[in-house]
Amino acid sequence: MTDIGGRAWELVLRTIEADLLSGSLKPGDHLPPERTLAAELQVGRSSVREALRVLEALGLIRTQTGSGPGAGAIITAAPSGGLGTLMRLQVAATGFAVADIVKTRVLLETAVARELANAAPVPDLQASATLLDAMDELGLTPEEFLALDAAFHVSLADASGNQVVAAIMSGLRTSIEGYVQAGVPSLPSWDATAEQLRGEHRAILRAVTGGDPDVAAARINSHITGYYTATSLPLHERN
Amino acid sequence: MTDIGGRAWELVLRTIEADLLSGSLKPGDHLPPERTLAAELQVGRSSVREALRVLEALGLIRTQTGSGPGAGAIITAAPSGGLGTLMRLQVAATGFAVADIVKTRVLLETAVARELANAAPVPDLQASATLLDAMDELGLTPEEFLALDAAFHVSLADASGNQVVAAIMSGLRTSIEGYVQAGVPSLPSWDATAEQLRGEHRAILRAVTGGDPDVAAARINSHITGYYTATSLPLHERN
Repeated sequence: MTDIGGRAWELVLRTIEADLLSGSLKPGDHLPPERTLAAELQVGRSSVREALRVLEALGLIRTQTGSGPGAGAIITAAPSGGLGTLMRLQVAATGFAVADIVKTRVLLETAVARELANAAPVPDLQASATLLDAMDELGLTPEEFLALDAAFHVSLADASGNQVVAAIMSGLRTSIEGYVQAGVPSLPSWDATAEQLRGEHRAILRAVTGGDPDVAAARINSHITGYYTATSLPLHERN
Repeated sequence: MTDIGGRAWELVLRTIEADLLSGSLKPGDHLPPERTLAAELQVGRSSVREALRVLEALGLIRTQTGSGPGAGAIITAAPSGGLGTLMRLQVAATGFAVADIVKTRVLLETAVARELANAAPVPDLQASATLLDAMDELGLTPEEFLALDAAFHVSLADASGNQVVAAIMSGLRTSIEGYVQAGVPSLPSWDATAEQLRGEHRAILRAVTGGDPDVAAARINSHITGYYTATSLPLHERN
Protein backbone atom coordinates (compact mmCIF):
# COMPACT_ATOMS: atom_id res chain seq x y z
CA MET A 1 0.00 0.00 0.00
CA THR A 2 3.03 2.22 -0.01
CA ASP A 3 2.10 3.30 -3.52
CA ILE A 4 -0.45 5.77 -2.22
CA GLY A 5 2.60 7.78 -1.16
CA GLY A 6 1.82 10.94 0.76
CA ARG A 7 -1.64 9.61 1.63
CA ALA A 8 -0.32 6.67 3.64
CA TRP A 9 -1.13 8.51 6.88
CA GLU A 10 -4.79 8.65 5.83
CA LEU A 11 -4.82 4.89 5.49
CA VAL A 12 -3.50 4.60 9.04
CA LEU A 13 -6.07 7.10 10.28
CA ARG A 14 -8.95 5.30 8.55
CA THR A 15 -7.79 1.94 9.87
CA ILE A 16 -7.71 3.13 13.47
CA GLU A 17 -11.03 4.92 12.96
CA ALA A 18 -12.60 1.71 11.68
CA ASP A 19 -11.31 -0.14 14.76
CA LEU A 20 -12.85 2.52 16.99
CA LEU A 21 -16.15 2.32 15.13
CA SER A 22 -16.28 -1.46 15.30
CA GLY A 23 -15.48 -1.38 19.01
CA SER A 24 -12.32 -3.44 18.66
CA LEU A 25 -10.50 -0.39 20.04
CA LYS A 26 -12.02 1.21 23.13
CA PRO A 27 -11.01 3.98 25.55
CA GLY A 28 -8.25 2.61 27.77
CA ASP A 29 -6.87 0.29 25.09
CA HIS A 30 -3.31 0.60 23.89
CA LEU A 31 -2.55 0.98 20.21
CA PRO A 32 0.06 -1.40 18.82
CA PRO A 33 3.58 0.09 18.69
CA GLU A 34 4.42 2.28 15.71
CA ARG A 35 6.62 -0.36 14.10
CA THR A 36 3.86 -2.98 14.36
CA LEU A 37 1.28 -0.68 12.79
CA ALA A 38 3.75 0.25 10.06
CA ALA A 39 4.46 -3.40 9.27
CA GLU A 40 0.80 -4.44 9.36
CA LEU A 41 -0.30 -1.64 7.06
CA GLN A 42 2.83 -1.69 4.94
CA VAL A 43 3.50 2.00 5.35
CA GLY A 44 6.46 3.91 6.71
CA ARG A 45 6.76 4.66 10.41
CA SER A 46 6.63 8.37 9.62
CA SER A 47 3.14 7.89 8.16
CA VAL A 48 2.06 6.10 11.31
CA ARG A 49 3.46 8.92 13.40
CA GLU A 50 1.61 11.54 11.32
CA ALA A 51 -1.69 9.74 11.83
CA LEU A 52 -1.03 9.45 15.57
CA ARG A 53 -0.42 13.19 15.76
CA VAL A 54 -3.81 13.84 14.19
CA LEU A 55 -5.50 11.55 16.69
CA GLU A 56 -3.59 13.16 19.53
CA ALA A 57 -4.50 16.68 18.44
CA LEU A 58 -8.13 15.60 18.38
CA GLY A 59 -7.79 14.45 21.98
CA LEU A 60 -8.52 10.84 21.08
CA ILE A 61 -5.22 9.27 22.07
CA ARG A 62 -2.45 10.16 24.45
CA THR A 63 1.03 9.15 23.43
CA GLN A 64 3.73 8.24 25.90
CA THR A 65 7.47 8.00 25.54
CA GLY A 66 9.53 4.98 26.54
CA SER A 67 9.43 1.38 25.50
CA GLY A 68 8.08 -0.48 28.56
CA PRO A 69 4.70 -2.23 28.72
CA GLY A 70 3.02 1.17 29.26
CA ALA A 71 4.58 2.60 26.10
CA GLY A 72 2.50 3.24 23.02
CA ALA A 73 -0.59 5.35 22.55
CA ILE A 74 -3.63 4.93 24.77
CA ILE A 75 -7.14 5.56 23.52
CA THR A 76 -8.62 8.33 25.63
CA ALA A 77 -12.16 9.60 25.87
CA ALA A 78 -11.57 13.32 25.68
CA PRO A 79 -14.13 14.77 23.31
CA SER A 80 -14.12 18.27 24.74
CA GLY A 81 -10.38 18.72 24.46
CA GLY A 82 -10.40 17.64 20.87
CA LEU A 83 -13.41 19.68 19.93
CA GLY A 84 -11.83 22.65 21.67
CA THR A 85 -8.70 22.35 19.60
CA LEU A 86 -10.71 22.06 16.45
CA MET A 87 -13.06 24.92 17.08
CA ARG A 88 -10.20 27.17 18.19
CA LEU A 89 -8.41 26.52 14.93
CA GLN A 90 -11.58 26.80 12.91
CA VAL A 91 -12.50 30.13 14.31
CA ALA A 92 -9.01 31.33 13.55
CA ALA A 93 -9.23 30.17 9.96
CA THR A 94 -12.78 31.07 9.12
CA GLY A 95 -13.97 33.57 11.69
CA PHE A 96 -17.41 32.70 12.93
CA ALA A 97 -19.56 35.83 13.11
CA VAL A 98 -19.94 36.90 16.74
CA ALA A 99 -23.69 37.31 16.20
CA ASP A 100 -23.88 33.63 15.22
CA ILE A 101 -21.97 32.57 18.32
CA VAL A 102 -24.27 34.66 20.51
CA LYS A 103 -27.44 33.30 18.87
CA THR A 104 -26.19 29.73 19.20
CA ARG A 105 -25.25 30.31 22.84
CA VAL A 106 -28.73 31.62 23.65
CA LEU A 107 -30.30 28.64 21.92
CA LEU A 108 -28.16 26.03 23.68
CA GLU A 109 -27.84 27.68 27.07
CA THR A 110 -31.51 28.49 27.59
CA ALA A 111 -32.22 24.82 26.84
CA VAL A 112 -29.51 23.80 29.33
CA ALA A 113 -30.99 26.10 32.00
CA ARG A 114 -34.47 24.67 31.45
CA GLU A 115 -33.19 21.10 31.59
CA LEU A 116 -31.27 21.73 34.81
CA ALA A 117 -34.23 23.49 36.45
CA ASN A 118 -36.54 20.62 35.47
CA ALA A 119 -34.17 17.86 36.55
CA ALA A 120 -35.06 15.64 39.47
CA PRO A 121 -33.18 15.13 41.66
CA VAL A 122 -31.54 18.57 41.58
CA PRO A 123 -28.33 18.13 39.54
CA ASP A 124 -24.90 18.54 41.09
CA LEU A 125 -23.87 22.15 40.48
CA GLN A 126 -20.87 22.22 42.81
CA ALA A 127 -18.43 22.82 39.95
CA SER A 128 -20.47 25.81 38.77
CA ALA A 129 -20.76 27.22 42.30
CA THR A 130 -17.00 26.86 42.86
CA LEU A 131 -16.34 28.91 39.73
CA LEU A 132 -18.67 31.66 40.97
CA ASP A 133 -16.81 31.72 44.29
CA ALA A 134 -13.54 32.08 42.39
CA MET A 135 -15.01 35.04 40.51
CA ASP A 136 -15.71 36.81 43.81
CA GLU A 137 -12.01 37.10 44.54
CA LEU A 138 -10.62 40.61 44.50
CA GLY A 139 -7.91 41.61 42.11
CA LEU A 140 -8.91 39.42 39.16
CA THR A 141 -8.02 40.90 35.79
CA PRO A 142 -10.86 41.07 33.22
CA GLU A 143 -9.10 38.23 31.35
CA GLU A 144 -9.04 36.01 34.43
CA PHE A 145 -12.61 36.89 35.35
CA LEU A 146 -13.94 36.22 31.85
CA ALA A 147 -12.08 32.92 31.54
CA LEU A 148 -13.81 31.78 34.73
CA ASP A 149 -17.06 33.20 33.33
CA ALA A 150 -16.81 31.09 30.15
CA ALA A 151 -15.91 28.06 32.28
CA PHE A 152 -19.04 28.65 34.37
CA HIS A 153 -21.22 28.53 31.28
CA VAL A 154 -19.53 25.35 30.06
CA SER A 155 -19.95 23.82 33.53
CA LEU A 156 -23.73 24.27 33.34
CA ALA A 157 -23.79 22.40 30.04
CA ASP A 158 -21.67 19.63 31.58
CA ALA A 159 -24.06 19.39 34.53
CA SER A 160 -27.06 19.07 32.21
CA GLY A 161 -25.86 15.62 31.17
CA ASN A 162 -26.44 16.14 27.43
CA GLN A 163 -23.06 15.04 26.10
CA VAL A 164 -23.57 16.56 22.67
CA VAL A 165 -24.45 20.01 23.97
CA ALA A 166 -21.62 19.79 26.54
CA ALA A 167 -19.13 18.97 23.77
CA ILE A 168 -20.39 21.82 21.60
CA MET A 169 -20.22 24.33 24.47
CA SER A 170 -16.75 23.15 25.34
CA GLY A 171 -15.77 23.60 21.72
CA LEU A 172 -17.18 27.12 21.68
CA ARG A 173 -15.46 28.13 24.92
CA THR A 174 -12.45 29.78 23.31
CA SER A 175 -14.70 31.66 20.87
CA ILE A 176 -16.81 32.86 23.78
CA GLU A 177 -13.77 34.01 25.74
CA GLY A 178 -12.54 35.75 22.62
CA TYR A 179 -15.55 37.94 21.94
CA VAL A 180 -16.34 38.77 25.56
CA GLN A 181 -12.75 39.88 26.14
CA ALA A 182 -12.78 41.89 22.93
CA GLY A 183 -15.74 43.83 24.31
CA VAL A 184 -14.08 44.93 27.56
CA PRO A 185 -12.53 48.19 26.28
CA SER A 186 -15.96 49.48 25.21
CA LEU A 187 -17.42 49.11 28.72
CA PRO A 188 -17.86 52.33 30.73
CA SER A 189 -16.65 50.60 33.91
CA TRP A 190 -15.21 47.11 34.18
CA ASP A 191 -15.78 47.00 37.95
CA ALA A 192 -19.46 47.83 37.56
CA THR A 193 -19.87 45.23 34.80
CA ALA A 194 -18.07 42.56 36.85
CA GLU A 195 -20.37 43.28 39.79
CA GLN A 196 -23.41 42.98 37.55
CA LEU A 197 -22.21 39.73 35.96
CA ARG A 198 -21.56 38.24 39.42
CA GLY A 199 -25.12 39.04 40.45
CA GLU A 200 -26.57 37.65 37.23
CA HIS A 201 -24.65 34.40 37.59
CA ARG A 202 -25.91 33.89 41.15
CA ALA A 203 -29.45 34.68 40.02
CA ILE A 204 -29.21 32.11 37.22
CA LEU A 205 -28.00 29.48 39.66
CA ARG A 206 -30.81 30.33 42.12
CA ALA A 207 -33.47 29.90 39.42
CA VAL A 208 -31.94 26.59 38.36
CA THR A 209 -31.67 25.14 41.87
CA GLY A 210 -35.09 26.60 42.71
CA GLY A 211 -36.58 24.54 39.88
CA ASP A 212 -37.93 27.45 37.82
CA PRO A 213 -37.17 26.71 34.15
CA ASP A 214 -38.83 29.82 32.67
CA VAL A 215 -37.00 32.22 34.98
CA ALA A 216 -33.71 30.35 34.56
CA ALA A 217 -34.01 30.51 30.75
CA ALA A 218 -35.03 34.19 30.75
CA ARG A 219 -32.15 35.12 33.06
CA ILE A 220 -29.48 33.35 31.03
CA ASN A 221 -30.90 34.87 27.84
CA SER A 222 -30.76 38.45 29.16
CA HIS A 223 -27.34 37.75 30.73
CA ILE A 224 -25.85 36.72 27.38
CA THR A 225 -27.59 39.28 25.18
CA GLY A 226 -27.18 42.06 27.77
CA TYR A 227 -23.39 41.81 27.74
CA TYR A 228 -23.39 41.65 23.96
CA THR A 229 -25.48 44.82 23.75
CA ALA A 230 -23.44 46.58 26.45
CA THR A 231 -20.23 45.98 24.57
CA SER A 232 -21.81 47.57 21.48
CA LEU A 233 -20.90 44.79 19.12
CA PRO A 234 -22.92 44.84 15.88
CA LEU A 235 -25.93 42.56 16.32
CA HIS A 236 -26.53 42.00 12.61
CA GLU A 237 -25.25 39.05 10.61
CA ARG A 238 -21.93 39.12 8.88
CA ASN A 239 -22.33 39.20 5.11
CA MET B 1 14.03 24.32 20.27
CA THR B 2 14.82 20.81 19.21
CA ASP B 3 15.18 19.95 22.91
CA ILE B 4 11.42 19.70 23.30
CA GLY B 5 11.82 16.46 21.36
CA GLY B 6 8.57 14.67 20.61
CA ARG B 7 6.56 17.83 21.17
CA ALA B 8 8.18 19.75 18.33
CA TRP B 9 5.09 19.23 16.16
CA GLU B 10 3.02 21.03 18.79
CA LEU B 11 5.30 24.04 18.51
CA VAL B 12 4.71 24.08 14.76
CA LEU B 13 0.96 23.72 15.26
CA ARG B 14 0.83 26.52 17.83
CA THR B 15 2.90 28.80 15.62
CA ILE B 16 0.61 28.35 12.63
CA GLU B 17 -2.43 28.69 14.87
CA ALA B 18 -1.09 32.00 16.21
CA ASP B 19 -0.60 33.24 12.64
CA LEU B 20 -4.19 32.29 11.83
CA LEU B 21 -5.46 34.04 14.96
CA SER B 22 -3.50 37.20 14.27
CA GLY B 23 -4.70 37.25 10.69
CA SER B 24 -1.23 37.08 9.19
CA LEU B 25 -2.37 33.78 7.61
CA LYS B 26 -5.74 33.84 5.86
CA PRO B 27 -7.73 31.39 3.70
CA GLY B 28 -6.08 31.26 0.29
CA ASP B 29 -2.60 31.97 1.63
CA HIS B 30 0.21 29.50 1.09
CA LEU B 31 2.22 28.19 3.99
CA PRO B 32 5.98 28.42 3.62
CA PRO B 33 7.59 25.19 2.35
CA GLU B 34 8.30 22.48 4.91
CA ARG B 35 12.04 23.12 4.88
CA THR B 36 11.54 26.85 5.51
CA LEU B 37 9.21 26.20 8.43
CA ALA B 38 11.62 23.63 9.82
CA ALA B 39 14.54 26.05 9.60
CA GLU B 40 12.60 28.98 11.04
CA LEU B 41 11.32 26.99 14.01
CA GLN B 42 14.50 24.92 14.40
CA VAL B 43 12.65 21.63 14.32
CA GLY B 44 12.95 18.61 12.07
CA ARG B 45 11.00 18.39 8.83
CA SER B 46 9.18 15.35 10.16
CA SER B 47 7.76 17.49 12.98
CA VAL B 48 6.57 20.05 10.45
CA ARG B 49 4.96 17.29 8.44
CA GLU B 50 3.17 15.91 11.51
CA ALA B 51 1.73 19.34 12.31
CA LEU B 52 0.60 19.77 8.69
CA ARG B 53 -1.20 16.43 8.85
CA VAL B 54 -3.15 17.60 11.89
CA LEU B 55 -4.14 20.80 10.12
CA GLU B 56 -5.09 18.85 7.02
CA ALA B 57 -7.22 16.35 8.96
CA LEU B 58 -9.03 19.30 10.52
CA GLY B 59 -9.81 20.58 7.04
CA LEU B 60 -7.84 23.77 7.57
CA ILE B 61 -5.17 23.30 4.93
CA ARG B 62 -4.88 21.38 1.70
CA THR B 63 -1.46 20.06 0.82
CA GLN B 64 -0.27 19.66 -2.73
CA THR B 65 2.55 17.67 -4.17
CA GLY B 66 5.19 19.08 -6.51
CA SER B 67 7.64 21.91 -6.14
CA GLY B 68 6.34 24.64 -8.46
CA PRO B 69 4.93 27.99 -7.33
CA GLY B 70 1.63 26.25 -6.46
CA ALA B 71 3.35 23.75 -4.20
CA GLY B 72 3.06 23.91 -0.46
CA ALA B 73 -0.01 23.91 1.74
CA ILE B 74 -2.87 26.32 1.16
CA ILE B 75 -5.04 27.62 3.98
CA THR B 76 -8.60 26.54 3.23
CA ALA B 77 -11.84 27.54 4.85
CA ALA B 78 -13.41 24.14 5.30
CA PRO B 79 -14.83 24.02 8.79
CA SER B 80 -17.47 21.40 8.05
CA GLY B 81 -15.06 18.83 6.70
CA GLY B 82 -12.82 19.21 9.68
CA LEU B 83 -15.61 19.17 12.18
CA GLY B 84 -17.05 16.13 10.45
CA THR B 85 -13.80 14.25 10.80
CA LEU B 86 -13.59 15.18 14.43
CA MET B 87 -17.11 14.33 15.39
CA ARG B 88 -16.97 11.05 13.49
CA LEU B 89 -13.89 10.04 15.42
CA GLN B 90 -15.28 11.33 18.68
CA VAL B 91 -18.44 9.37 18.37
CA ALA B 92 -16.38 6.30 17.65
CA ALA B 93 -14.23 6.86 20.71
CA THR B 94 -16.79 8.03 23.20
CA GLY B 95 -20.21 7.14 21.87
CA PHE B 96 -22.60 10.02 22.23
CA ALA B 97 -25.94 8.77 23.52
CA VAL B 98 -28.46 8.68 20.67
CA ALA B 99 -31.00 10.40 22.91
CA ASP B 100 -28.59 13.34 23.30
CA ILE B 101 -28.08 13.57 19.55
CA VAL B 102 -31.84 13.56 18.97
CA LYS B 103 -32.48 16.19 21.65
CA THR B 104 -29.74 18.41 20.26
CA ARG B 105 -31.09 17.96 16.73
CA VAL B 106 -34.58 19.02 17.78
CA LEU B 107 -33.16 22.06 19.56
CA LEU B 108 -31.00 23.20 16.66
CA GLU B 109 -33.27 22.21 13.77
CA THR B 110 -36.47 23.75 15.10
CA ALA B 111 -34.52 26.99 15.53
CA VAL B 112 -33.22 26.65 11.95
CA ALA B 113 -36.75 26.07 10.63
CA ARG B 114 -38.06 29.13 12.48
CA GLU B 115 -35.21 31.28 11.24
CA LEU B 116 -35.71 30.18 7.63
CA ALA B 117 -39.49 30.72 7.79
CA ASN B 118 -39.00 34.21 9.27
CA ALA B 119 -36.28 35.23 6.83
CA ALA B 120 -36.94 37.98 4.32
CA PRO B 121 -36.34 37.66 1.47
CA VAL B 122 -37.16 33.95 1.33
CA PRO B 123 -33.78 32.17 1.58
CA ASP B 124 -32.37 30.11 -1.26
CA LEU B 125 -33.45 26.53 -0.64
CA GLN B 126 -32.49 25.12 -4.03
CA ALA B 127 -29.86 22.79 -2.53
CA SER B 128 -32.44 21.36 -0.13
CA ALA B 129 -35.04 20.93 -2.89
CA THR B 130 -32.53 19.16 -5.13
CA LEU B 131 -31.82 16.65 -2.36
CA LEU B 132 -35.55 15.95 -2.00
CA ASP B 133 -35.81 15.36 -5.75
CA ALA B 134 -32.91 12.91 -5.51
CA MET B 135 -34.75 11.06 -2.74
CA ASP B 136 -37.74 10.55 -5.05
CA GLU B 137 -35.70 8.30 -7.33
CA LEU B 138 -36.71 4.69 -7.37
CA GLY B 139 -34.35 1.96 -6.34
CA LEU B 140 -32.46 3.82 -3.64
CA THR B 141 -31.19 1.61 -0.86
CA PRO B 142 -32.06 2.68 2.70
CA GLU B 143 -28.38 3.67 3.13
CA GLU B 144 -28.48 5.92 0.06
CA PHE B 145 -31.83 7.40 1.01
CA LEU B 146 -30.78 8.15 4.58
CA ALA B 147 -27.47 9.69 3.50
CA LEU B 148 -29.47 12.11 1.32
CA ASP B 149 -31.87 12.60 4.23
CA ALA B 150 -29.05 13.66 6.58
CA ALA B 151 -27.67 15.91 3.84
CA PHE B 152 -31.10 17.56 3.51
CA HIS B 153 -31.13 18.43 7.21
CA VAL B 154 -27.59 19.83 7.03
CA SER B 155 -28.57 21.85 3.94
CA LEU B 156 -31.33 23.61 5.88
CA ALA B 157 -28.81 24.64 8.54
CA ASP B 158 -26.49 25.90 5.80
CA ALA B 159 -29.32 27.92 4.25
CA SER B 160 -30.14 29.54 7.61
CA GLY B 161 -26.87 31.45 7.44
CA ASN B 162 -25.88 30.77 11.06
CA GLN B 163 -22.33 29.53 10.52
CA VAL B 164 -21.99 28.06 13.99
CA VAL B 165 -25.16 26.00 13.79
CA ALA B 166 -24.27 24.95 10.23
CA ALA B 167 -20.83 23.75 11.39
CA ILE B 168 -22.34 21.85 14.31
CA MET B 169 -24.96 20.18 12.10
CA SER B 170 -22.32 19.28 9.57
CA GLY B 171 -20.24 17.79 12.37
CA LEU B 172 -23.20 15.76 13.60
CA ARG B 173 -24.07 14.46 10.14
CA THR B 174 -22.24 11.16 10.42
CA SER B 175 -23.72 10.56 13.87
CA ILE B 176 -27.17 11.25 12.47
CA GLU B 177 -26.64 8.89 9.54
CA GLY B 178 -25.37 6.30 11.98
CA TYR B 179 -28.37 6.16 14.27
CA VAL B 180 -31.04 6.48 11.57
CA GLN B 181 -29.48 3.62 9.61
CA ALA B 182 -29.18 1.53 12.76
CA GLY B 183 -32.94 1.86 13.16
CA VAL B 184 -33.91 0.53 9.71
CA PRO B 185 -34.13 -3.18 10.65
CA SER B 186 -36.71 -2.43 13.33
CA LEU B 187 -39.09 -0.75 10.86
CA PRO B 188 -42.16 -2.78 9.79
CA SER B 189 -41.77 -1.58 6.18
CA TRP B 190 -38.91 0.44 4.76
CA ASP B 191 -40.94 1.44 1.70
CA ALA B 192 -43.76 2.83 3.82
CA THR B 193 -41.31 4.73 6.02
CA ALA B 194 -39.48 6.16 3.01
CA GLU B 195 -42.79 7.37 1.59
CA GLN B 196 -43.70 8.99 4.89
CA LEU B 197 -40.31 10.67 5.24
CA ARG B 198 -40.58 12.05 1.69
CA GLY B 199 -43.93 13.60 2.51
CA GLU B 200 -42.68 15.04 5.79
CA HIS B 201 -39.66 16.62 4.10
CA ARG B 202 -41.86 18.31 1.48
CA ALA B 203 -44.24 19.53 4.19
CA ILE B 204 -41.33 21.02 6.16
CA LEU B 205 -40.10 22.84 3.07
CA ARG B 206 -43.62 24.14 2.30
CA ALA B 207 -43.99 25.57 5.82
CA VAL B 208 -40.57 27.20 5.55
CA THR B 209 -41.14 28.77 2.14
CA GLY B 210 -44.70 29.69 3.16
CA GLY B 211 -43.26 31.75 6.02
CA ASP B 212 -44.91 29.83 8.86
CA PRO B 213 -42.32 29.44 11.63
CA ASP B 214 -44.56 27.65 14.15
CA VAL B 215 -45.72 25.03 11.67
CA ALA B 216 -42.21 24.59 10.26
CA ALA B 217 -40.78 24.03 13.76
CA ALA B 218 -43.57 21.66 14.78
CA ARG B 219 -43.18 19.62 11.59
CA ILE B 220 -39.42 19.20 11.91
CA ASN B 221 -39.82 18.29 15.57
CA SER B 222 -42.35 15.54 14.90
CA HIS B 223 -40.34 14.40 11.86
CA ILE B 224 -37.21 13.84 13.97
CA THR B 225 -38.87 12.44 17.07
CA GLY B 226 -41.34 10.36 15.03
CA TYR B 227 -38.60 8.40 13.29
CA TYR B 228 -36.78 7.93 16.58
CA THR B 229 -39.92 6.54 18.19
CA ALA B 230 -40.77 4.38 15.16
CA THR B 231 -37.38 2.72 15.26
CA SER B 232 -37.98 1.87 18.92
CA LEU B 233 -34.68 3.20 20.16
CA PRO B 234 -34.63 3.78 23.90
CA LEU B 235 -35.68 7.37 24.55
CA HIS B 236 -34.11 7.61 28.00
CA GLU B 237 -30.64 8.93 28.70
CA ARG B 238 -27.61 6.71 28.69
CA ASN B 239 -26.31 6.23 32.23
